[in-house]
Amino acid sequence: MIKHLTVTTPGQGLHEFTERLDALVRESGIEEGLCTLFVQHTSASLLIQENADPAVRRDLEQWLNRLVPEDDPLYTHRNEGPDDMPGHIKSALTATHLAIPVTGGRLALGTWQGVYLWEHRHRGGPRRIVVHLGE
Amino acid sequence: MIKHLTVTTPGQGLHEFTERLDALVRESGIEEGLCTLFVQHTSASLLIQENADPAVRRDLEQWLNRLVPEDDPLYTHRNEGPDDMPGHIKSALTATHLAIPVTGGRLALGTWQGVYLWEHRHRGGPRRIVVHLGE
Amino acid sequence: MIKHLTVTTPGQGLHEFTERLDALVRESGIEEGLCTLFVQHTSASLLIQENADPAVRRDLEQWLNRLVPEDDPLYTHRNEGPDDMPGHIKSALTATHLAIPVTGGRLALGTWQGVYLWEHRHRGGPRRIVVHLGE
Repeated sequence: MIKHLTVTTPGQGLHEFTERLDALVRESGIEEGLCTLFVQHTSASLLIQENADPAVRRDLEQWLNRLVPEDDPLYTHRNEGPDDMPGHIKSALTATHLAIPVTGGRLALGTWQGVYLWEHRHRGGPRRIVVHLGE
Repeated sequence: MIKHLTVTTPGQGLHEFTERLDALVRESGIEEGLCTLFVQHTSASLLIQENADPAVRRDLEQWLNRLVPEDDPLYTHRNEGPDDMPGHIKSALTATHLAIPVTGGRLALGTWQGVYLWEHRHRGGPRRIVVHLGE
Repeated sequence: MIKHLTVTTPGQGLHEFTERLDALVRESGIEEGLCTLFVQHTSASLLIQENADPAVRRDLEQWLNRLVPEDDPLYTHRNEGPDDMPGHIKSALTATHLAIPVTGGRLALGTWQGVYLWEHRHRGGPRRIVVHLGE
């Protein structure tokens, strides 16, 4: 079963959508199986991360921005501005897809795990995610 | 089919559990399919890596510890000690889940590939892995 | 359903094989499902990346080569030459497997997404990929 999800964000950073994904799993009626997510963009990622302390997401974002800065003279691809090539590098270092088991009709996440869209561009906007639900 | 696996480690580093996973695949009776693993923690990862020379694991661990050091003034999240935020960053840079095809009733790993739990915290302990086996 | 694909490259860098993979999906007759790829090597990765401007791949390759240089005194594992340990580190930071939904009998890739084998060794050669196709 294939479902489509659009996550719209105001800009760069981690944006949680665990509840929307879990609702989609519940609606599917699948009791035991696998939920696979795929983001159809090359400057955004999918991430499982702690959803307790917001400082974790801020530190993570800051750390990655320092590792992949915008003003790096190495870049030759700058078609869409200074956050273009960093977005591609960040997406290569993180995940384009995730797979989360389903048990008891729910996502089998750990106690502190949330599901995030990691937007790498400043301007944000809608990001398309394709969700596969299988048994 | 969902199975549960707990990998208990003495602390930080790569801990192989290929044989336990392969045993679980054999017990399932699946001849051809897909084995998906998901770790229910945000400071440990799953990794496919060379299992021939132990120096590969040591170098990998040292390299990542240097890239993500504990004493970085950037971190604001320090709730659980100096290895807390590095653990989250390391897990974001590596894999929370893996999928390995099954052929002939066995994991279709390459000759030198092993399956590892990568513990990012010093103290180690039990880590829960959910395994989905599908055809 | 399990299929095998060998991608042969002349050496280090990103090598696209989207068309071959899409042909394999079409041949399978699967209309809606999931295509999972697994590379049976620990010094090559699988990557979804932009396939419009070749400069993206060049910049990505250069950036990763700078992050994981060959002459790092940290490495103790040097069995197969100066590109041996960097290959293992690069594969740990990127993906050993990918999962792409299938819709309408085709890979559900975004407009600018291509599927790449990322060869981390200088000499290149054949790399084995196991493909699982499920509904």
